[in-house]
Amino acid sequence: MRDVCVIGLGLIGGSLLRAAAASGRTAWGAAVSEVDADAASRAGFDVTTDVEAALHRAAAEDAMVVLAVPLPAVEDLLRLVNQHASHCLLTDVTSVKAPVLDAVRRRVPYTRYVGGHPMAGTSKSGWLAGDASLFQGAAWVVAVEEDTDLEAWAEVAKLVLDVGAHVVPLPAESHDEAVARISHLPHLLAAILATIGAEGGPLAMSLAAGSYRDGTRVAGSNPQLVRAMTEGNRDALLPIVDEALGRLGAARGSLASTGGLAATINAGYEGAQALAASLDVERAGVRISLAAPDARQGLIALGERGGRITGLTDGIATGEVQ
Amino acid sequence: MRDVCVIGLGLIGGSLLRAAAASGRTAWGAAVSEVDADAASRAGFDVTTDVEAALHRAAAEDAMVVLAVPLPAVEDLLRLVNQHASHCLLTDVTSVKAPVLDAVRRRVPYTRYVGGHPMAGTSKSGWLAGDASLFQGAAWVVAVEEDTDLEAWAEVAKLVLDVGAHVVPLPAESHDEAVARISHLPHLLAAILATIGAEGGPLAMSLAAGSYRDGTRVAGSNPQLVRAMTEGNRDALLPIVDEALGRLGAARGSLASTGGLAATINAGYEGAQALAASLDVERAGVRISLAAPDARQGLIALGERGGRITGLTDGIATGEVQ
Repeated sequence: MRDVCVIGLGLIGGSLLRAAAASGRTAWGAAVSEVDADAASRAGFDVTTDVEAALHRAAAEDAMVVLAVPLPAVEDLLRLVNQHASHCLLTDVTSVKAPVLDAVRRRVPYTRYVGGHPMAGTSKSGWLAGDASLFQGAAWVVAVEEDTDLEAWAEVAKLVLDVGAHVVPLPAESHDEAVARISHLPHLLAAILATIGAEGGPLAMSLAAGSYRDGTRVAGSNPQLVRAMTEGNRDALLPIVDEALGRLGAARGSLASTGGLAATINAGYEGAQALAASLDVERAGVRISLAAPDARQGLIALGERGGRITGLTDGIATGEVQ
Repeated sequence: MRDVCVIGLGLIGGSLLRAAAASGRTAWGAAVSEVDADAASRAGFDVTTDVEAALHRAAAEDAMVVLAVPLPAVEDLLRLVNQHASHCLLTDVTSVKAPVLDAVRRRVPYTRYVGGHPMAGTSKSGWLAGDASLFQGAAWVVAVEEDTDLEAWAEVAKLVLDVGAHVVPLPAESHDEAVARISHLPHLLAAILATIGAEGGPLAMSLAAGSYRDGTRVAGSNPQLVRAMTEGNRDALLPIVDEALGRLGAARGSLASTGGLAATINAGYEGAQALAASLDVERAGVRISLAAPDARQGLIALGERGGRITGLTDGIATGEVQ
């Protein structure tokens, strides 16, 4: 099993360092944040605030390098990767994939890069919020592009499986469009709801119950991280925000004119059933040989249909799809 | 302690019947829904599908009548109340207060009516979803208008305290404005989010994680009940929807032009802190004598400042406010 070097020890990077170590890998990390690095060190992990030293060691050991910093810090970090570990197998956990892919192609053209994004998190951030079990049962996108090196892809996928997640193979663009819907729009709507609720003052807060707590929970997330992911996905997010504006405007018009909200509320109810059904659906087993000439297309088709890879042995990916 | 007659045995009415009985009161109920009435009867409660008989008994026993039906059914039920129990102490648990107050004044002019609304619920509905402990720790608005009979108010407040909730005294209009912010807008945004998420198909559903699950949870509520409460609060809800449209449009404009979402996300973060702070705030004790000439104003001022009544003995309401 290849060693793992995690750069960035916040919620995701810190959880991955713990989980990789727990799975039996040799794993070390680095964080610019002294708070995170100190806490990780006190917890017995092999970490440093010297990012260059950690990358140098990764090059010497031919380790896999995992970028676990927020999107705005990725470009600078890639410059260091190019200086110190330009031939290492590289992946990341950033919440937007096309901009990172683009930056890697510009900054570290000779690396073997496979983008990644675990669909796990809490509204907390930092090392202390992390947990080796954070990824258990979570979806983790491992990006497949037309030119993806499938040996590198399999190594990243194996790490993902080792830490308890399942692999969703997708091109960067498909990932970014989907997360605009199911992660970035939720964060925007939560922020707007929390703003409008708080404007109601102590009275409104005194009546806030389940629907408000649920609807605003992620508004309590670190605002810099939320900005990084939403602003970083601008191209995919704009049309989704437009769709929300259109639907909210239609609801407004209907309420004002006919007094009815049936179309809005019934569509939402059906949407909620779609999520419930997707958790419950009967799934068929699939096997994809990574040596097959159409392996990339097979992986992408699986991901696009909502499927997942749950095992990987001897070049054969096994999984399930509805 | 006055007997309690609950009409409507869904989630809220069914939970109230259980909780009132558990608190030692004589309590009976009626439901048009045979499913709910059968289930309640099998659980050992004193219930019938004959609403008129239940109201007739309420008149004979001088019981408190609780309307626990959705808003669209209130007018018809008030006709029956006027026929069979027109002098009973009357309250309700409907999620909108001004329209019910208006209907009561038109349909049952001689009743002593005190509006109520427990801020508790789940996305489930029906008798089987109910629970005697549903109201523990919940806010329950008990309406105070300029002409409210404070003896009647105290009786309704006592029932609320007996079932484990605290009392928030508010005029109907203040209630309706606040719930537009912290309950009805959350339901609308959840419906829109669930619609847009589901349009992303199985792929989007396969990546949905905490932010999407939290943000769409109430979209799974019974759509007829959600329509009843949102459409029933049209006057208060329209300006709140306009505010959401304005804020979402501003976010869209900022993302498209400067690429930034700082204003939206920072305001949301501060709003989330306001909710957290309201749960945590230091509160001072208050005492309000219901016999004082300005008791109504004192109660309303308490509610408007986010305060609550937690005890009621010998005409003295005790509570706390920040």
